[in-house]
Amino acid sequence: MIAEILSTGDEIRSGAIMDSNAAYISQKLEEAGLPVIRHNCVGDDIDILVSVLEEIGSRTDIAVVTGGLGPTMDDLTAEAAAKAAKVELVLNDNALSSIKSFYSSRNRRMPVLSEKMALLPKGAECLKNRVGSAPGFLLVIGRCRFFFLPGVPFEMRSMLSNQVLPQLEKLQGPNRKFFAVKTLSTFGLTESQTEERLAGFSAKFSEIKLGLRVDFPEIQIKLYCNGRNRKRLEEIITAACKWIWPKIGRNLFSIDGGSMEGVVGKLLSEQQATLAVAESCTGGLISHLLTNVAGSSDYFLFSGVTYSNESKIRVLGVSAATLQQYGAVHTEVVKEMAEGVRRLTGATYGLSTSGIAGPGGGTDDKPVGTLCIGLSTAKSSRGCQYNFSFAQRSMNKKIFAVKALDLLRRELLDAIGSEEVQSSTL
Amino acid sequence: MIAEILSTGDEIRSGAIMDSNAAYISQKLEEAGLPVIRHNCVGDDIDILVSVLEEIGSRTDIAVVTGGLGPTMDDLTAEAAAKAAKVELVLNDNALSSIKSFYSSRNRRMPVLSEKMALLPKGAECLKNRVGSAPGFLLVIGRCRFFFLPGVPFEMRSMLSNQVLPQLEKLQGPNRKFFAVKTLSTFGLTESQTEERLAGFSAKFSEIKLGLRVDFPEIQIKLYCNGRNRKRLEEIITAACKWIWPKIGRNLFSIDGGSMEGVVGKLLSEQQATLAVAESCTGGLISHLLTNVAGSSDYFLFSGVTYSNESKIRVLGVSAATLQQYGAVHTEVVKEMAEGVRRLTGATYGLSTSGIAGPGGGTDDKPVGTLCIGLSTAKSSRGCQYNFSFAQRSMNKKIFAVKALDLLRRELLDAIGSEEVQSSTL
Repeated sequence: MIAEILSTGDEIRSGAIMDSNAAYISQKLEEAGLPVIRHNCVGDDIDILVSVLEEIGSRTDIAVVTGGLGPTMDDLTAEAAAKAAKVELVLNDNALSSIKSFYSSRNRRMPVLSEKMALLPKGAECLKNRVGSAPGFLLVIGRCRFFFLPGVPFEMRSMLSNQVLPQLEKLQGPNRKFFAVKTLSTFGLTESQTEERLAGFSAKFSEIKLGLRVDFPEIQIKLYCNGRNRKRLEEIITAACKWIWPKIGRNLFSIDGGSMEGVVGKLLSEQQATLAVAESCTGGLISHLLTNVAGSSDYFLFSGVTYSNESKIRVLGVSAATLQQYGAVHTEVVKEMAEGVRRLTGATYGLSTSGIAGPGGGTDDKPVGTLCIGLSTAKSSRGCQYNFSFAQRSMNKKIFAVKALDLLRRELLDAIGSEEVQSSTL
Repeated sequence: MIAEILSTGDEIRSGAIMDSNAAYISQKLEEAGLPVIRHNCVGDDIDILVSVLEEIGSRTDIAVVTGGLGPTMDDLTAEAAAKAAKVELVLNDNALSSIKSFYSSRNRRMPVLSEKMALLPKGAECLKNRVGSAPGFLLVIGRCRFFFLPGVPFEMRSMLSNQVLPQLEKLQGPNRKFFAVKTLSTFGLTESQTEERLAGFSAKFSEIKLGLRVDFPEIQIKLYCNGRNRKRLEEIITAACKWIWPKIGRNLFSIDGGSMEGVVGKLLSEQQATLAVAESCTGGLISHLLTNVAGSSDYFLFSGVTYSNESKIRVLGVSAATLQQYGAVHTEVVKEMAEGVRRLTGATYGLSTSGIAGPGGGTDDKPVGTLCIGLSTAKSSRGCQYNFSFAQRSMNKKIFAVKALDLLRRELLDAIGSEEVQSSTL
């Protein structure tokens, strides 16, 4: 069995909104063992809708369609489905009672216009919508079973998991396949360096498809495999992770899709350590990332976004002489910043950045992309300099912030003498 | 002429990543006067790629294809295009020199593997890539001109605007229609409040299609119109903006797609004023947004991300008694934070936040979504409290940050006695 996805609506077709439903549905169908062959998207045009439904009906087993089920003139999906299946629209009692119970559960009167949503193609099976007013439906067109769902993401998600996936499981019967995807997140190697280090993987793990994906500034290693025995899948994925880990080393920071800031937060928590940050060129991004993690107030004490020299001196106690002698972008300055913010807050770790994110401010000596990171602990303080060559300010800020967090992560691993990412999950 | 979009790659097909390219390309093509009829997405499968290219080639005039141009085994687009066009792959000299100059401009040796990217279908015209290694190409298949671009979004965007759109303009000839889209950004009204205030628009401006779009936490008012006389289009758009402005008032913050942080930065620059920020619940996001604007170091002095009470006291000089009496989320506390950060840095404006972004930390009295903003100027200081009701931590952080920037924007407008957004451009 193979599947397709059809997203409908002028808003998506014209690019006014991005289609987040297609990716979500693909993931869920593939996890359920149904390969998704193709996505399609067309606007609110009855002729085009009918022809794309006929087309999909002629080549696919299962299709999930989103959008166009509402009560307005633009909502043409039921009409198009009826035309493609060459049946009439009829009042569907289950659909009508689904709409009525939605409104009564919210103590609202059902608008007259909403009755239109109960007109479904003859022979369609109503799919009740418990979180919105528009019911969905199941209809066979050609050789394909179409599941028609609303376009509102949380309604679609609820109906997909409560109504579509259980039906698909039954359809696939006892011989269904399971699909596993594992994401390993790395930072520090280029895409081609990562590929080189993984040479020989395919010969060793012929059942796994390996893919590299750039999620700037990370490189993700993706492992895909499928089979009828779920336990066996888990075993070969685990074996593959164990094979990969020593080849990528500490550049591998997460094997469960976790973010750099989440991993750093977890290590700080585990070590009952606290962190204070002094940011110049990263402009608050390190703090923003750290505080995106729920519970970060347990270990994140303070960040001083000291954009001006004056604030580096006044808040962090950086020496005016150091700034005068070296300029703000220098290993000595970030060292003093990291020491200063640690002193100010009493944190276990002080982390700092100063650099040139661009587009202006670069010199021959220190071009755009220059980054200094300072790290101060109870034992010692140091400053390091790096160079990146990205054109965009936003990319520089991002890689600067992740590089600083990565430096801290490696320090935290040293502190516990660990070479592993998260040994418990390997 | 009509257009279609084809996104390729297993990552998008399987839902591992969301297809942001399709929406972007649709928008740009529609603005250029080319109706986009359909989006398609298939994976890295040579037979399926060939058949979808043939299919699009049989029904459409223009197609933009993304992905699959890289050097690895998975990159099958050039091969599929050659098969669909029934030509051979040949070494394209322009493509080879594009790849070579990319590497030499970055002082890197060209990897041997990269030569594969210069193998293009016979008859293809190379589209140079100035920001990445993989060149694109133009090839006619069936009745359709296909523009093949890389899948990396910033490479695709650069090539679309520098190479594809100018060619499409020429193709459309002297009778081409111009499509104008104007984006007015608002903050502070709901979607339905905005709609109500704009009642009567369509009767007054029948040539303009009005659309509302939520770009959380902003509501954008979009004006679409088209015609053969560009000057006339500009005139009616200007008249529409003048009609809309008094109805939306100060909730309208930008009429050129500019961001809230950009508008605040411009107002600070114009008034030669400086800003210091003290962030608690926004966790660095206000600073991150402000410093995304190039040149922000002219007015942005410092931000203290004071997550702990200790740091509010030690860095900003908030009184321990105030914190003890009211708790950290209180109008008195944010007032003292704003005053403290202004005193510390000597900035013209001190802006502060404290609130509960969730998921934890809410109480009956101060539920998740509670936000206090403090603003301190030479004349006075104040603290205000607001309540938002979003479930996600990331949404709360975002609306908290934009709300604080908006409060400052209104203060900056008061300072110059201006009721207008940017009077020069209206």
